[in-house]
Amino acid sequence: VHVKFGEASAMLAGDALQAMAFELLTPDDDAIPARQQAALCRLLARAAGSAGMAGGQAIDLASVGVALTERQLRQMHRLKTGALLQASVMMGAACGDVSAQAEAALMSYGAAIGLAFQVVDDMLDVTADSATLGKTAGKDADQDKPTFVSLLGLERAGVYAQELLAEALGALARSGLRDTQALQGLARRLVNRTC
Amino acid sequence: VHVKFGEASAMLAGDALQAMAFELLTPDDDAIPARQQAALCRLLARAAGSAGMAGGQAIDLASVGVALTERQLRQMHRLKTGALLQASVMMGAACGDVSAQAEAALMSYGAAIGLAFQVVDDMLDVTADSATLGKTAGKDADQDKPTFVSLLGLERAGVYAQELLAEALGALARSGLRDTQALQGLARRLVNRTC
Repeated sequence: VHVKFGEASAMLAGDALQAMAFELLTPDDDAIPARQQAALCRLLARAAGSAGMAGGQAIDLASVGVALTERQLRQMHRLKTGALLQASVMMGAACGDVSAQAEAALMSYGAAIGLAFQVVDDMLDVTADSATLGKTAGKDADQDKPTFVSLLGLERAGVYAQELLAEALGALARSGLRDTQALQGLARRLVNRTC
Repeated sequence: VHVKFGEASAMLAGDALQAMAFELLTPDDDAIPARQQAALCRLLARAAGSAGMAGGQAIDLASVGVALTERQLRQMHRLKTGALLQASVMMGAACGDVSAQAEAALMSYGAAIGLAFQVVDDMLDVTADSATLGKTAGKDADQDKPTFVSLLGLERAGVYAQELLAEALGALARSGLRDTQALQGLARRLVNRTC
């Protein structure tokens, strides 16, 4: 958008789309009970804001040229990409009627796949063919920006992604939910994707 | 913010603050009933998005160097500043228990003061001492951007602001609300301000 329409329009489009997300969650025709509407807005607002995506992006911005530890990198990505991915899981849960046990398990599941997504992204950034990934491979991996691959190496990053997948599947197994097939499949596809 | 911390940080701060607005409206301690939380988010989301502030700003952006009619200028400011000012009135109403009659009247009140705010802003931009206004007088009034003053002239803009004030006060008078003193005072202060 910023290349085709300019930076100002791109910023405005982002602002408008963020507002639209909350508008979609609050229809006035009672199709969604008010209690659910409020819960959905609450989850999205927290995940998008300073304790979520925007905060993670701010850390990312501040960490250019700074050496991050693996723990700091994890924390950054927990906020930057993890929070919204986790929120998308919890917003699904908020539309149903889940137990506290299931809710806790889904939180763990969401956190694990959120982090796994980023680890795999860093790996693909190094390994993937630029055509399949749709961007120039290695492009994000500038020396100034630490990635899971630059910190762990490619092989250990792959092991870490599989550990996170196991963590996600383990969380589903102890959730007490009857049917977790779709969520299992989502986690597997996310970790085993090649683009 | 963009001067002191850079554009990227300023954009992020805006994103984070927009999310925080929705977070503040959706506390999870039941201090605000869920039905009100949903209604507040609905009002804010619509007023901030493409049919409100962001949309008005986009029209503003697209209209640089383009001659706008008075009607088009009104429509732009209805969205750009009016929608959020109107929403702030309606969000107050949503926290109470107002009749449909009062709601319609408050909508008119909010629209009138929203537009009046902008008309007075355009006037102050030409007349105010730069020290009192806190910005350089005439700064916004570049030839490329039509204002109510550039379209109507200073005198007729002043008449228009008073008409809008009368419209706002008239709406309150027919609202059926018991005590509208504060809202009357707000409208008067907004129109008769000198900075």
